[in-house]
Amino acid sequence: MRTIKVNLGERSYPIHVGAGLLPRMGEFLQQVGCRGKIAIVTNPTITALYLKPVEGALSRSGFKVTSVLLPDGEEHKNLNSLSVIYDRLIAERFERDSAIVALGGGVIGDLTGFAAATFLRGIPYVQVPTTLLAQVDSSVGGKTGVNHQEGKNLIGAFYQPRLVLIDVEVLPTLPRREFVAGMAEVIKYGIIEDPHLFAFLEQNLAGFLALSSELVEEIIATSCAIKAKVVEKDEREENYRSILNFGHTVGHALEALTGYGRFLHGEAVAVGMVQAASISLSQGFCDERSLGRIRQLITAAGLPSEIPPDIKPPGLVKSMEVDKKSSGGRIKFVLCEAIGKTRFHWLSPEEIVSQLKA
Amino acid sequence: MRTIKVNLGERSYPIHVGAGLLPRMGEFLQQVGCRGKIAIVTNPTITALYLKPVEGALSRSGFKVTSVLLPDGEEHKNLNSLSVIYDRLIAERFERDSAIVALGGGVIGDLTGFAAATFLRGIPYVQVPTTLLAQVDSSVGGKTGVNHQEGKNLIGAFYQPRLVLIDVEVLPTLPRREFVAGMAEVIKYGIIEDPHLFAFLEQNLAGFLALSSELVEEIIATSCAIKAKVVEKDEREENYRSILNFGHTVGHALEALTGYGRFLHGEAVAVGMVQAASISLSQGFCDERSLGRIRQLITAAGLPSEIPPDIKPPGLVKSMEVDKKSSGGRIKFVLCEAIGKTRFHWLSPEEIVSQLKA
Repeated sequence: MRTIKVNLGERSYPIHVGAGLLPRMGEFLQQVGCRGKIAIVTNPTITALYLKPVEGALSRSGFKVTSVLLPDGEEHKNLNSLSVIYDRLIAERFERDSAIVALGGGVIGDLTGFAAATFLRGIPYVQVPTTLLAQVDSSVGGKTGVNHQEGKNLIGAFYQPRLVLIDVEVLPTLPRREFVAGMAEVIKYGIIEDPHLFAFLEQNLAGFLALSSELVEEIIATSCAIKAKVVEKDEREENYRSILNFGHTVGHALEALTGYGRFLHGEAVAVGMVQAASISLSQGFCDERSLGRIRQLITAAGLPSEIPPDIKPPGLVKSMEVDKKSSGGRIKFVLCEAIGKTRFHWLSPEEIVSQLKA
Repeated sequence: MRTIKVNLGERSYPIHVGAGLLPRMGEFLQQVGCRGKIAIVTNPTITALYLKPVEGALSRSGFKVTSVLLPDGEEHKNLNSLSVIYDRLIAERFERDSAIVALGGGVIGDLTGFAAATFLRGIPYVQVPTTLLAQVDSSVGGKTGVNHQEGKNLIGAFYQPRLVLIDVEVLPTLPRREFVAGMAEVIKYGIIEDPHLFAFLEQNLAGFLALSSELVEEIIATSCAIKAKVVEKDEREENYRSILNFGHTVGHALEALTGYGRFLHGEAVAVGMVQAASISLSQGFCDERSLGRIRQLITAAGLPSEIPPDIKPPGLVKSMEVDKKSSGGRIKFVLCEAIGKTRFHWLSPEEIVSQLKA
């Protein structure tokens, strides 16, 4: 097991990455001061695979456990699902020191974190991410929230978990497509911060795709450490933290425009990263070779790299404007100067339309 | 004008108390860094009295103003009203540096603050309280939230405003009953922290009730300064801040049990303070004279002091148990040892039932 510490003063917390951690959940929760009542928020898929053993492990450690089952999918990350969680916490008489465990992917994690942030003005929560995407990205850093019909994550809070528990042994049950989608965020860490990670992925792609457990643990831990470092520098995304949005400006717009049903988040981000690299080249910020390596690794991982022909740039840009990344009519892009080096750049809607590669 | 500073590091902010501040709102907002878009959240009563001049003042200072009108009353402090605010902010393309102004009483302030806390994971907001209750209590300290059908303020966040602007000239248009209800919180500050304020109120009650503006400004500023001091010591109510709940354990239960329609918040708190003082006496913590002075000042102010005969202690206590102030089955009371001195005490439901004076 590897442990990464996220250093945020009194809001600091550990991330444990390893094999066989789920059955030890009770012990880890006690280590961070949880006691008494626990609500596990999860979805039908995870319920079938892992809920019983997790409930058992927590009960054996003396916790009083209740489980909240929510439907799967981005379209359920909304105020209604939030109310389902609130209602249960109230019915079970949750108190300020009762804790919530998010057992699932990013949707479960974001919803649960926001419920924890806002129930009784904040109770403890623990992230137990079960998808690669959630393990390397959404479970770390305290971004919580729900979608609004007009856009993703428009309602939310910065609220850090007490602990992130990443059991790599859940990954073999993850659908292949979802595992691959999660790789987009791993590749992103290489592009924005770590040329060694990027080269390591180029060299070890086959082993990672084959779920070689040593490789997986190392790559996840490295990704989490990068995310932790970025969050420590700029917890509330005043500026620097938004380098994590590399590929996300186009990616979010693509997801929104297709009703969150066609692309997985990581797939949309993969397309967005190639577009961002392509704009970086057009702007003269990066060279052809960097763009080529990015496109090559994304394609080799089995991720999409092109905007589908039925989606037109003007529609995409309109969708960006309602997103959190716009200000004064211009839209903030994270662009790259090389593998491992980014810069911010504000573009007008017209400039973006002309530079997106359909 | 008097200015009190709430010292909370990077979340510090000023409270301005004075006459004729509404027409100068633009200038004060600029001083705290607001610019661009402003949404004013308010209710029908305030709209009729003050909205046009406030909109005019903000427009003249260069702000682009939109106003969100919400129905009045505690029963509208819920997730639906919150959605109305979100929808408007999205329609107006609010961005991270756009601000919201809460122009109204506690319901408007709590709702608006929570909308600001959770829109785009937090945008700036300004409290412009128009009731005495909101001026001396809810607008200061960053408690925001909405009610759940099972209890008050069960959903919310700690989120500090950028500025609190208290114009005492709005008080003559406040219904008498609401002004008197606000006095309950003023009296509370005397009981929990400041025997001089309490004595000053005993001596100057008539002038305060007659809205002598010098007296009103002084009393409000003193109340805000006490609240600020308490919040500075314990922003997130880990423990100490809950002395502000003196009278509120019974008060909240009384409001909840009567559907928020029969008692104004301050009236319920007034009853709760006499009950808390009475329990303090039963427990041997305070003397008869303190209880007598508290009951006397509350009665002289025109506030209720008794639990009505149709409300029975067991029902009240049941209502307390779902509130945030319970833990491990026992309920936390703020009791008094003297005027200006409090202590915490945990009581079982049975003890409370036996000690409440019907």
